Amino acid sequence: MRICIIGIGLIGGSFALALRKHALVERIYGVDASPCNAKKALELGLVDEIVEFDNATEVADIIAIATPVDTIPQIAIKLLNNISDNQIVMDMGSTKEELCELISQHPHRNRFVATHPMWGTEHSGPEAAVAGAFAGCNTVICEEERSDSNAVATIENIFTAIGMKIMRMSPAQHDTHAAYVSHISHITSFILATTVLEKERESDTILDLAGGGFESTVRLAKSSPEMWIPILMQNKYNILDVLREYIHQLEIFRKALEKDKRDEIRQTIERANTIRKILDKK
Amino acid sequence: MRICIIGIGLIGGSFALALRKHALVERIYGVDASPCNAKKALELGLVDEIVEFDNATEVADIIAIATPVDTIPQIAIKLLNNISDNQIVMDMGSTKEELCELISQHPHRNRFVATHPMWGTEHSGPEAAVAGAFAGCNTVICEEERSDSNAVATIENIFTAIGMKIMRMSPAQHDTHAAYVSHISHITSFILATTVLEKERESDTILDLAGGGFESTVRLAKSSPEMWIPILMQNKYNILDVLREYIHQLEIFRKALEKDKRDEIRQTIERANTIRKILDKK
Repeated sequence: MRICIIGIGLIGGSFALALRKHALVERIYGVDASPCNAKKALELGLVDEIVEFDNATEVADIIAIATPVDTIPQIAIKLLNNISDNQIVMDMGSTKEELCELISQHPHRNRFVATHPMWGTEHSGPEAAVAGAFAGCNTVICEEERSDSNAVATIENIFTAIGMKIMRMSPAQHDTHAAYVSHISHITSFILATTVLEKERESDTILDLAGGGFESTVRLAKSSPEMWIPILMQNKYNILDVLREYIHQLEIFRKALEKDKRDEIRQTIERANTIRKILDKK
Repeated sequence: MRICIIGIGLIGGSFALALRKHALVERIYGVDASPCNAKKALELGLVDEIVEFDNATEVADIIAIATPVDTIPQIAIKLLNNISDNQIVMDMGSTKEELCELISQHPHRNRFVATHPMWGTEHSGPEAAVAGAFAGCNTVICEEERSDSNAVATIENIFTAIGMKIMRMSPAQHDTHAAYVSHISHITSFILATTVLEKERESDTILDLAGGGFESTVRLAKSSPEMWIPILMQNKYNILDVLREYIHQLEIFRKALEKDKRDEIRQTIERANTIRKILDKK
Protein backbone atom coordinates (compact mmCIF):
# COMPACT_ATOMS: atom_id res chain seq x y z
CA MET A 1 0.00 0.00 0.00
CA ARG A 2 1.30 3.41 -0.94
CA ILE A 3 0.12 6.57 0.79
CA CYS A 4 0.43 10.22 -0.13
CA ILE A 5 0.15 12.77 2.67
CA ILE A 6 -0.94 16.28 1.71
CA GLY A 7 0.51 18.68 4.28
CA ILE A 8 3.48 17.21 6.12
CA GLY A 9 3.37 19.21 9.33
CA LEU A 10 2.55 18.30 12.92
CA ILE A 11 -0.31 15.93 12.02
CA GLY A 12 0.76 14.71 8.58
CA GLY A 13 4.37 14.22 9.70
CA SER A 14 3.40 12.39 12.89
CA PHE A 15 1.03 10.20 10.88
CA ALA A 16 3.89 9.35 8.49
CA LEU A 17 6.10 8.34 11.43
CA ALA A 18 3.33 6.15 12.89
CA LEU A 19 2.68 4.46 9.52
CA ARG A 20 6.36 3.71 9.12
CA LYS A 21 6.82 2.48 12.68
CA HIS A 22 4.03 -0.04 12.25
CA ALA A 23 5.12 -0.97 8.71
CA LEU A 24 1.66 -0.23 7.37
CA VAL A 25 2.70 1.17 4.00
CA GLU A 26 5.35 0.42 1.43
CA ARG A 27 6.03 3.97 0.42
CA ILE A 28 5.09 7.41 1.73
CA TYR A 29 4.75 10.30 -0.69
CA GLY A 30 4.41 13.85 0.51
CA VAL A 31 2.92 17.04 -0.90
CA ASP A 32 3.41 20.40 0.80
CA ALA A 33 2.51 23.91 -0.34
CA SER A 34 5.75 25.13 1.21
CA PRO A 35 8.84 23.91 -0.70
CA CYS A 36 10.85 24.58 2.44
CA ASN A 37 8.65 22.30 4.57
CA ALA A 38 8.63 19.67 1.83
CA LYS A 39 12.44 19.66 1.86
CA LYS A 40 12.55 19.41 5.64
CA ALA A 41 10.03 16.55 5.65
CA LEU A 42 12.26 14.66 3.24
CA GLU A 43 15.41 15.42 5.24
CA LEU A 44 13.73 14.31 8.46
CA GLY A 45 12.77 11.04 6.76
CA LEU A 46 9.07 11.63 7.25
CA VAL A 47 8.38 10.87 3.61
CA ASP A 48 10.20 8.85 0.96
CA GLU A 49 9.53 11.23 -1.87
CA ILE A 50 8.03 14.63 -2.53
CA VAL A 51 5.53 14.79 -5.40
CA GLU A 52 3.41 17.49 -6.96
CA PHE A 53 -0.18 17.73 -5.82
CA ASP A 54 -1.39 16.79 -9.30
CA ASN A 55 0.54 13.52 -9.10
CA ALA A 56 -0.85 12.44 -5.74
CA THR A 57 -3.65 10.34 -7.21
CA GLU A 58 -1.24 8.74 -9.67
CA VAL A 59 1.23 7.43 -7.12
CA ALA A 60 -0.84 6.46 -4.08
CA ASP A 61 -3.59 4.09 -3.00
CA ILE A 62 -4.56 6.33 -0.11
CA ILE A 63 -4.34 10.11 -0.09
CA ALA A 64 -4.49 11.65 3.41
CA ILE A 65 -5.20 15.37 3.76
CA ALA A 66 -3.58 17.00 6.80
CA THR A 67 -3.71 20.70 5.87
CA PRO A 68 -5.44 23.64 7.65
CA VAL A 69 -9.20 22.99 7.68
CA ASP A 70 -10.12 25.85 5.36
CA THR A 71 -8.18 24.20 2.54
CA ILE A 72 -9.44 20.64 3.06
CA PRO A 73 -12.74 20.79 1.10
CA GLN A 74 -11.16 22.10 -2.11
CA ILE A 75 -8.28 19.64 -1.88
CA ALA A 76 -10.72 16.80 -1.17
CA ILE A 77 -12.89 17.66 -4.18
CA LYS A 78 -9.92 17.93 -6.53
CA LEU A 79 -8.63 14.57 -5.37
CA LEU A 80 -12.06 12.92 -5.64
CA ASN A 81 -12.31 14.28 -9.18
CA ASN A 82 -9.28 12.21 -10.11
CA ILE A 83 -9.44 8.93 -8.25
CA SER A 84 -10.46 5.44 -9.27
CA ASP A 85 -12.75 3.14 -7.33
CA ASN A 86 -9.80 1.41 -5.73
CA GLN A 87 -8.36 4.51 -4.16
CA ILE A 88 -9.27 6.23 -0.90
CA VAL A 89 -9.13 9.88 0.11
CA MET A 90 -9.23 10.72 3.82
CA ASP A 91 -8.82 13.90 5.84
CA MET A 92 -7.55 14.43 9.36
CA GLY A 93 -9.04 17.86 10.09
CA SER A 94 -10.44 19.31 13.32
CA THR A 95 -13.83 20.32 11.86
CA LYS A 96 -16.21 18.14 9.92
CA GLU A 97 -19.56 19.81 9.07
CA GLU A 98 -18.39 22.18 6.35
CA LEU A 99 -16.26 19.52 4.69
CA CYS A 100 -18.92 16.81 4.76
CA GLU A 101 -21.50 19.20 3.34
CA LEU A 102 -19.25 20.35 0.51
CA ILE A 103 -18.34 16.83 -0.62
CA SER A 104 -21.80 15.35 0.02
CA GLN A 105 -22.94 15.28 -3.61
CA HIS A 106 -19.63 14.31 -5.15
CA PRO A 107 -19.97 11.17 -7.31
CA HIS A 108 -16.92 9.71 -5.53
CA ARG A 109 -18.10 10.60 -2.01
CA ASN A 110 -18.09 6.85 -1.31
CA ARG A 111 -14.27 6.78 -1.63
CA PHE A 112 -13.82 9.49 1.01
CA VAL A 113 -13.37 8.77 4.74
CA ALA A 114 -13.79 11.78 7.04
CA THR A 115 -11.63 11.38 10.15
CA HIS A 116 -10.31 13.38 13.06
CA PRO A 117 -7.56 11.71 15.05
CA MET A 118 -7.84 13.50 18.41
CA TRP A 119 -4.21 14.25 19.07
CA GLY A 120 -2.08 17.36 18.75
CA THR A 121 0.48 19.64 20.34
CA GLU A 122 0.99 23.39 20.34
CA HIS A 123 3.81 23.06 17.80
CA SER A 124 3.62 23.04 14.01
CA GLY A 125 5.58 22.18 10.88
CA PRO A 126 7.50 19.02 9.92
CA GLU A 127 9.94 19.43 12.85
CA ALA A 128 6.94 19.14 15.18
CA ALA A 129 6.25 15.58 14.02
CA VAL A 130 6.38 13.18 16.96
CA ALA A 131 7.05 9.45 16.96
CA GLY A 132 4.44 7.58 18.97
CA ALA A 133 1.80 10.25 18.43
CA PHE A 134 -1.88 9.20 18.29
CA ALA A 135 -1.37 6.02 20.35
CA GLY A 136 -3.94 5.72 23.10
CA CYS A 137 -6.10 8.51 21.64
CA ASN A 138 -9.39 8.38 19.79
CA THR A 139 -10.15 8.89 16.13
CA VAL A 140 -13.57 10.15 15.18
CA ILE A 141 -14.96 8.88 11.88
CA CYS A 142 -17.92 10.85 10.54
CA GLU A 143 -20.63 9.67 8.17
CA GLU A 144 -19.11 6.25 7.70
CA GLU A 145 -22.42 5.17 6.15
CA ARG A 146 -21.55 7.45 3.22
CA SER A 147 -18.20 5.75 2.62
CA ASP A 148 -17.66 2.33 1.03
CA SER A 149 -17.28 -0.26 3.74
CA ASN A 150 -13.95 -1.47 2.33
CA ALA A 151 -12.61 2.10 2.44
CA VAL A 152 -13.74 2.56 6.06
CA ALA A 153 -12.27 -0.82 7.01
CA THR A 154 -8.89 0.06 5.48
CA ILE A 155 -8.70 3.38 7.32
CA GLU A 156 -9.98 1.94 10.59
CA ASN A 157 -7.37 -0.80 10.42
CA ILE A 158 -4.65 1.80 10.02
CA PHE A 159 -5.84 3.83 13.02
CA THR A 160 -6.28 0.71 15.11
CA ALA A 161 -2.81 -0.50 14.17
CA ILE A 162 -1.24 2.75 15.36
CA GLY A 163 -2.98 2.34 18.71
CA MET A 164 -6.13 4.43 18.33
CA LYS A 165 -9.71 3.70 19.27
CA ILE A 166 -12.46 4.46 16.76
CA MET A 167 -15.51 6.57 17.60
CA ARG A 168 -18.34 7.24 15.22
CA MET A 169 -20.47 10.37 15.19
CA SER A 170 -22.20 12.77 12.85
CA PRO A 171 -20.30 15.85 11.60
CA ALA A 172 -22.61 18.06 13.69
CA GLN A 173 -22.00 16.04 16.85
CA HIS A 174 -18.29 16.05 16.21
CA ASP A 175 -18.09 19.81 15.76
CA THR A 176 -20.14 20.50 18.90
CA HIS A 177 -18.02 18.22 21.06
CA ALA A 178 -14.77 19.46 19.52
CA ALA A 179 -15.74 23.03 20.41
CA TYR A 180 -16.02 21.97 24.07
CA VAL A 181 -13.11 19.64 24.53
CA SER A 182 -10.58 21.22 22.22
CA HIS A 183 -11.38 24.52 20.54
CA ILE A 184 -12.42 26.49 23.65
CA SER A 185 -9.21 25.50 25.49
CA HIS A 186 -7.23 27.21 22.79
CA ILE A 187 -9.18 30.44 23.17
CA THR A 188 -8.89 30.45 26.96
CA SER A 189 -5.12 29.97 26.58
CA PHE A 190 -4.70 32.62 23.87
CA ILE A 191 -6.59 35.15 25.98
CA LEU A 192 -4.86 34.22 29.23
CA ALA A 193 -1.53 34.81 27.51
CA THR A 194 -2.58 38.16 26.06
CA THR A 195 -4.07 39.29 29.40
CA VAL A 196 -0.93 38.45 31.33
CA LEU A 197 1.31 39.95 28.64
CA GLU A 198 -0.85 43.08 28.62
CA LYS A 199 -0.67 43.62 32.35
CA GLU A 200 2.70 42.15 33.20
CA ARG A 201 4.98 44.50 31.34
CA GLU A 202 7.89 43.21 33.38
CA SER A 203 8.18 40.02 31.39
CA ASP A 204 11.14 38.86 33.44
CA THR A 205 8.79 38.62 36.37
CA ILE A 206 6.50 36.30 34.44
CA LEU A 207 9.54 34.30 33.49
CA ASP A 208 10.71 33.98 37.06
CA LEU A 209 7.46 33.56 38.91
CA ALA A 210 5.50 31.44 36.47
CA GLY A 211 5.27 27.93 37.84
CA GLY A 212 4.13 24.72 36.21
CA GLY A 213 0.49 25.67 36.74
CA PHE A 214 0.65 28.80 34.61
CA GLU A 215 2.72 27.05 31.99
CA SER A 216 0.26 24.21 31.70
CA THR A 217 -2.74 26.53 31.46
CA VAL A 218 -1.14 28.76 28.85
CA ARG A 219 0.66 26.08 26.82
CA LEU A 220 -1.86 26.06 23.96
CA ALA A 221 -1.32 29.82 23.49
CA LYS A 222 1.74 28.85 21.47
CA SER A 223 -0.50 27.29 18.79
CA SER A 224 -0.24 28.69 15.28
CA PRO A 225 -2.73 31.13 13.74
CA GLU A 226 -2.42 29.27 10.40
CA MET A 227 -3.99 26.19 11.93
CA TRP A 228 -6.36 27.85 14.38
CA ILE A 229 -7.99 30.73 12.52
CA PRO A 230 -9.57 28.34 9.98
CA ILE A 231 -10.82 26.07 12.79
CA LEU A 232 -12.31 29.01 14.69
CA MET A 233 -13.99 30.28 11.54
CA GLN A 234 -15.36 26.91 10.43
CA ASN A 235 -16.69 26.00 13.85
CA LYS A 236 -17.69 29.57 14.68
CA TYR A 237 -21.25 29.01 15.93
CA ASN A 238 -20.43 26.12 18.22
CA ILE A 239 -17.39 27.95 19.54
CA LEU A 240 -19.35 31.17 20.14
CA ASP A 241 -21.91 29.14 22.04
CA VAL A 242 -19.26 27.73 24.39
CA LEU A 243 -17.44 31.05 24.63
CA ARG A 244 -20.61 32.89 25.70
CA GLU A 245 -21.28 30.27 28.35
CA TYR A 246 -17.65 30.48 29.55
CA ILE A 247 -17.82 34.29 29.84
CA HIS A 248 -21.18 33.97 31.63
CA GLN A 249 -19.70 31.53 34.16
CA LEU A 250 -16.70 33.83 34.69
CA GLU A 251 -19.04 36.76 35.39
CA ILE A 252 -20.92 34.70 37.97
CA PHE A 253 -17.61 33.80 39.62
CA ARG A 254 -16.41 37.42 39.54
CA LYS A 255 -19.58 38.63 41.25
CA ALA A 256 -19.34 35.90 43.88
CA LEU A 257 -15.76 36.94 44.62
CA GLU A 258 -16.68 40.64 44.72
CA LYS A 259 -19.37 39.88 47.29
CA ASP A 260 -17.31 37.39 49.32
CA LYS A 261 -19.77 34.59 48.60
CA ARG A 262 -17.55 31.83 49.89
CA ASP A 263 -20.24 29.13 49.69
CA GLU A 264 -20.94 29.89 46.06
CA ILE A 265 -17.22 29.86 45.25
CA ARG A 266 -16.83 26.59 47.11
CA GLN A 267 -19.67 25.02 45.12
CA THR A 268 -18.07 26.14 41.85
CA ILE A 269 -14.66 24.78 42.80
CA GLU A 270 -16.14 21.50 44.04
CA ARG A 271 -18.09 21.15 40.81
CA ALA A 272 -14.90 21.89 38.84
CA ASN A 273 -13.06 19.28 40.90
CA THR A 274 -15.35 16.57 39.50
CA ILE A 275 -13.45 16.90 36.21
CA ARG A 276 -10.88 14.80 38.08
CA LYS A 277 -13.13 11.73 37.88
CA ILE A 278 -13.37 12.13 34.14
CA LEU A 279 -9.73 12.90 33.42
CA ASP A 280 -8.29 10.35 35.84
CA LYS A 281 -10.24 7.53 34.16
CA LYS A 282 -8.16 8.05 31.05
CA MET B 1 19.13 22.00 63.12
CA ARG B 2 15.64 20.80 63.91
CA ILE B 3 12.61 21.95 61.98
CA CYS B 4 8.91 21.72 62.72
CA ILE B 5 6.51 21.92 59.77
CA ILE B 6 2.98 23.10 60.50
CA GLY B 7 0.68 21.57 57.87
CA ILE B 8 2.20 18.48 56.25
CA GLY B 9 0.39 18.48 52.94
CA LEU B 10 1.50 19.12 49.36
CA ILE B 11 3.86 21.99 50.26
CA GLY B 12 4.89 21.06 53.80
CA GLY B 13 5.36 17.40 52.89
CA SER B 14 7.38 18.17 49.75
CA PHE B 15 9.50 20.62 51.76
CA ALA B 16 10.18 17.86 54.31
CA LEU B 17 11.30 15.50 51.53
CA ALA B 18 13.61 18.16 50.08
CA LEU B 19 15.15 18.95 53.48
CA ARG B 20 15.79 15.28 54.11
CA LYS B 21 17.20 14.63 50.65
CA HIS B 22 19.75 17.40 51.08
CA ALA B 23 20.46 16.46 54.72
CA LEU B 24 19.71 20.00 55.83
CA VAL B 25 18.12 19.15 59.16
CA GLU B 26 18.69 16.59 61.89
CA ARG B 27 15.09 16.02 62.75
CA ILE B 28 11.73 16.94 61.22
CA TYR B 29 8.72 17.43 63.46
CA GLY B 30 5.25 17.78 62.07
CA VAL B 31 2.02 19.38 63.22
CA ASP B 32 -1.26 18.86 61.41
CA ALA B 33 -4.80 19.86 62.30
CA SER B 34 -6.00 16.56 60.83
CA PRO B 35 -4.94 13.54 62.95
CA CYS B 36 -5.46 11.39 59.87
CA ASN B 37 -3.06 13.47 57.76
CA ALA B 38 -0.56 13.56 60.65
CA LYS B 39 -0.62 9.77 60.78
CA LYS B 40 -0.17 9.48 57.02
CA ALA B 41 2.72 11.95 57.05
CA LEU B 42 4.45 9.80 59.67
CA GLU B 43 3.75 6.58 57.77
CA LEU B 44 5.07 8.10 54.55
CA GLY B 45 8.25 9.08 56.37
CA LEU B 46 7.74 12.77 55.66
CA VAL B 47 8.31 13.63 59.32
CA ASP B 48 10.15 11.88 62.14
CA GLU B 49 7.65 12.73 64.82
CA ILE B 50 4.24 14.32 65.21
CA VAL B 51 3.97 16.94 67.96
CA GLU B 52 1.23 19.17 69.28
CA PHE B 53 1.11 22.72 67.97
CA ASP B 54 1.89 24.07 71.44
CA ASN B 55 5.14 22.09 71.50
CA ALA B 56 6.41 23.31 68.14
CA THR B 57 8.49 26.15 69.58
CA GLU B 58 9.92 23.83 72.24
CA VAL B 59 11.32 21.21 69.88
CA ALA B 60 12.48 23.11 66.79
CA ASP B 61 14.95 25.80 65.73
CA ILE B 62 12.87 26.66 62.66
CA ILE B 63 9.10 26.49 62.47
CA ALA B 64 7.76 26.51 58.89
CA ILE B 65 4.07 27.26 58.31
CA ALA B 66 2.57 25.51 55.27
CA THR B 67 -1.16 25.75 55.98
CA PRO B 68 -3.96 27.45 53.97
CA VAL B 69 -3.25 31.19 53.81
CA ASP B 70 -6.21 32.27 55.94
CA THR B 71 -4.75 30.42 58.93
CA ILE B 72 -1.15 31.60 58.54
CA PRO B 73 -1.36 34.99 60.31
CA GLN B 74 -2.86 33.58 63.52
CA ILE B 75 -0.44 30.66 63.57
CA ALA B 76 2.47 33.03 62.90
CA ILE B 77 1.49 35.35 65.77
CA LYS B 78 1.05 32.48 68.23
CA LEU B 79 4.46 31.09 67.31
CA LEU B 80 6.14 34.51 67.50
CA ASN B 81 4.59 34.95 70.96
CA ASN B 82 6.55 31.92 72.15
CA ILE B 83 9.94 31.95 70.45
CA SER B 84 13.38 32.96 71.60
CA ASP B 85 15.81 35.15 69.67
CA ASN B 86 17.58 32.09 68.32
CA GLN B 87 14.55 30.61 66.64
CA ILE B 88 13.01 31.41 63.26
CA VAL B 89 9.42 31.27 62.07
CA MET B 90 8.78 31.21 58.32
CA ASP B 91 5.72 30.75 56.15
CA MET B 92 5.35 29.32 52.65
CA GLY B 93 1.99 30.84 51.69
CA SER B 94 0.74 32.11 48.32
CA THR B 95 -0.29 35.57 49.56
CA LYS B 96 1.83 38.02 51.50
CA GLU B 97 0.19 41.41 52.12
CA GLU B 98 -2.37 40.42 54.75
CA LEU B 99 0.17 38.32 56.64
CA CYS B 100 2.93 40.94 56.60
CA GLU B 101 0.51 43.61 57.77
CA LEU B 102 -0.83 41.51 60.63
CA ILE B 103 2.60 40.62 62.01
CA SER B 104 4.16 44.01 61.28
CA GLN B 105 4.05 45.32 64.85
CA HIS B 106 4.89 42.09 66.61
CA PRO B 107 7.91 42.48 68.92
CA HIS B 108 9.42 39.33 67.35
CA ARG B 109 8.74 40.35 63.74
CA ASN B 110 12.53 40.26 63.25
CA ARG B 111 12.51 36.46 63.72
CA PHE B 112 9.95 35.91 60.96
CA VAL B 113 10.85 35.29 57.32
CA ALA B 114 7.98 35.64 54.83
CA THR B 115 8.51 33.32 51.84
CA HIS B 116 6.64 31.90 48.88
CA PRO B 117 8.37 29.03 47.12
CA MET B 118 6.76 29.18 43.66
CA TRP B 119 5.97 25.53 43.14
CA GLY B 120 2.83 23.45 43.40
CA THR B 121 0.60 20.87 41.81
CA GLU B 122 -3.17 20.41 41.65
CA HIS B 123 -3.02 17.70 44.33
CA SER B 124 -3.20 18.07 48.10
CA GLY B 125 -2.54 16.23 51.35
CA PRO B 126 0.55 14.31 52.55
CA GLU B 127 0.24 11.76 49.71
CA ALA B 128 0.70 14.64 47.27
CA ALA B 129 4.22 15.33 48.58
CA VAL B 130 6.75 15.02 45.79
CA ALA B 131 10.47 14.29 46.01
CA GLY B 132 12.49 16.78 43.99
CA ALA B 133 9.84 19.49 44.26
CA PHE B 134 10.96 23.15 44.28
CA ALA B 135 14.25 22.49 42.44
CA GLY B 136 14.72 24.94 39.57
CA CYS B 137 11.90 27.20 40.77
CA ASN B 138 11.99 30.59 42.48
CA THR B 139 11.30 31.53 46.07
CA VAL B 140 10.03 35.00 46.80
CA ILE B 141 11.15 36.52 50.09
CA CYS B 142 9.16 39.57 51.18
CA GLU B 143 10.25 42.37 53.50
CA GLU B 144 13.61 40.84 54.20
CA GLU B 145 14.66 44.18 55.69
CA ARG B 146 12.23 43.50 58.52
CA SER B 147 13.82 40.15 59.37
CA ASP B 148 17.14 39.62 61.16
CA SER B 149 19.87 39.09 58.61
CA ASN B 150 20.96 35.81 60.21
CA ALA B 151 17.38 34.53 59.99
CA VAL B 152 17.14 35.49 56.31
CA ALA B 153 20.54 33.94 55.60
CA THR B 154 19.52 30.63 57.22
CA ILE B 155 16.30 30.40 55.23
CA GLU B 156 17.93 31.52 51.97
CA ASN B 157 20.61 28.87 52.43
CA ILE B 158 17.96 26.21 52.81
CA PHE B 159 16.11 27.29 49.66
CA THR B 160 19.34 27.58 47.70
CA ALA B 161 20.43 24.13 48.87
CA ILE B 162 17.21 22.56 47.59
CA GLY B 163 17.84 24.14 44.19
CA MET B 164 15.78 27.33 44.31
CA LYS B 165 16.63 30.85 43.22
CA ILE B 166 15.79 33.72 45.57
CA MET B 167 13.77 36.77 44.48
CA ARG B 168 13.02 39.72 46.71
CA MET B 169 9.95 41.90 46.45
CA SER B 170 7.45 43.78 48.58
CA PRO B 171 4.29 41.99 49.74
CA ALA B 172 2.22 44.22 47.44
CA GLN B 173 4.42 43.45 44.42
CA HIS B 174 4.30 39.75 45.23
CA ASP B 175 0.51 39.64 45.49
CA THR B 176 0.03 41.54 42.22
CA HIS B 177 2.39 39.29 40.28
CA ALA B 178 1.01 36.13 41.91
CA ALA B 179 -2.50 37.13 40.77
CA TYR B 180 -1.23 37.20 37.18
CA VAL B 181 1.06 34.23 36.99
CA SER B 182 -0.69 31.85 39.33
CA HIS B 183 -4.06 32.78 40.80
CA ILE B 184 -5.84 33.70 37.54
CA SER B 185 -4.81 30.38 35.92
CA HIS B 186 -6.69 28.55 38.63
CA ILE B 187 -9.86 30.56 37.99
CA THR B 188 -9.68 30.05 34.23
CA SER B 189 -9.30 26.30 34.81
CA PHE B 190 -12.08 26.06 37.39
CA ILE B 191 -14.46 27.87 35.07
CA LEU B 192 -13.40 25.97 31.95
CA ALA B 193 -14.13 22.74 33.81
CA THR B 194 -17.55 23.93 35.04
CA THR B 195 -18.46 25.24 31.57
CA VAL B 196 -17.60 22.00 29.85
CA LEU B 197 -19.27 19.91 32.55
CA GLU B 198 -22.35 22.11 32.33
CA LYS B 199 -22.69 21.75 28.58
CA GLU B 200 -21.24 18.32 27.97
CA ARG B 201 -23.73 16.20 29.82
CA GLU B 202 -22.41 13.16 28.03
CA SER B 203 -19.32 12.90 30.16
CA ASP B 204 -18.12 9.82 28.33
CA THR B 205 -17.68 12.02 25.30
CA ILE B 206 -15.43 14.39 27.23
CA LEU B 207 -13.53 11.37 28.42
CA ASP B 208 -13.05 9.99 24.96
CA LEU B 209 -12.46 13.13 22.97
CA ALA B 210 -10.44 15.19 25.42
CA GLY B 211 -6.86 15.32 24.23
CA GLY B 212 -3.72 16.47 25.94
CA GLY B 213 -4.57 20.09 25.20
CA PHE B 214 -7.81 20.09 27.15
CA GLU B 215 -6.24 18.13 29.96
CA SER B 216 -3.37 20.57 30.28
CA THR B 217 -5.64 23.62 30.25
CA VAL B 218 -8.03 22.19 32.81
CA ARG B 219 -5.51 20.45 35.08
CA LEU B 220 -5.59 23.12 37.79
CA ALA B 221 -9.37 22.67 38.08
CA LYS B 222 -8.56 19.70 40.30
CA SER B 223 -7.11 22.04 42.95
CA SER B 224 -8.70 21.97 46.38
CA PRO B 225 -11.17 24.59 47.67
CA GLU B 226 -9.50 24.42 51.10
CA MET B 227 -6.31 25.85 49.67
CA TRP B 228 -7.79 28.14 47.01
CA ILE B 229 -10.75 29.89 48.63
CA PRO B 230 -8.45 31.55 51.22
CA ILE B 231 -6.01 32.63 48.48
CA LEU B 232 -8.82 34.09 46.35
CA MET B 233 -10.23 35.94 49.35
CA GLN B 234 -6.90 37.29 50.56
CA ASN B 235 -5.78 38.45 47.14
CA LYS B 236 -9.27 39.46 46.07
CA TYR B 237 -8.59 42.95 44.68
CA ASN B 238 -5.59 41.96 42.58
CA ILE B 239 -7.41 38.89 41.31
CA LEU B 240 -10.57 40.86 40.44
CA ASP B 241 -8.39 43.29 38.53
CA VAL B 242 -6.91 40.51 36.39
CA LEU B 243 -10.25 38.72 36.07
CA ARG B 244 -11.97 41.86 34.75
CA GLU B 245 -9.20 42.34 32.20
CA TYR B 246 -9.42 38.67 31.20
CA ILE B 247 -13.20 38.88 30.69
CA HIS B 248 -12.73 42.13 28.74
CA GLN B 249 -10.19 40.48 26.41
CA LEU B 250 -12.51 37.50 25.93
CA GLU B 251 -15.35 39.84 24.96
CA ILE B 252 -13.14 41.54 22.39
CA PHE B 253 -12.22 38.14 20.96
CA ARG B 254 -15.84 36.99 20.94
CA LYS B 255 -16.93 40.10 19.01
CA ALA B 256 -14.07 39.67 16.53
CA LEU B 257 -15.13 36.07 15.92
CA GLU B 258 -18.81 37.04 15.57
CA LYS B 259 -17.88 39.57 12.92
CA ASP B 260 -15.33 37.36 11.12
CA LYS B 261 -12.52 39.83 11.85
CA ARG B 262 -9.73 37.51 10.81
CA ASP B 263 -7.02 40.15 11.03
CA GLU B 264 -7.94 41.06 14.56
CA ILE B 265 -8.02 37.39 15.58
CA ARG B 266 -4.67 36.85 13.90
CA GLN B 267 -3.15 39.77 15.82
CA THR B 268 -4.45 38.36 19.11
CA ILE B 269 -3.10 34.89 18.42
CA GLU B 270 0.25 36.25 17.26
CA ARG B 271 0.47 38.36 20.40
CA ALA B 272 -0.42 35.30 22.49
CA ASN B 273 2.26 33.30 20.67
CA THR B 274 4.93 35.63 22.08
CA ILE B 275 4.40 33.90 25.44
CA ARG B 276 6.55 31.20 23.82
CA LYS B 277 9.63 33.42 24.06
CA ILE B 278 9.06 33.85 27.75
CA LEU B 279 8.18 30.27 28.61
CA ASP B 280 10.82 28.66 26.42
CA LYS B 281 13.57 30.65 28.15
CA LYS B 282 12.84 28.75 31.33
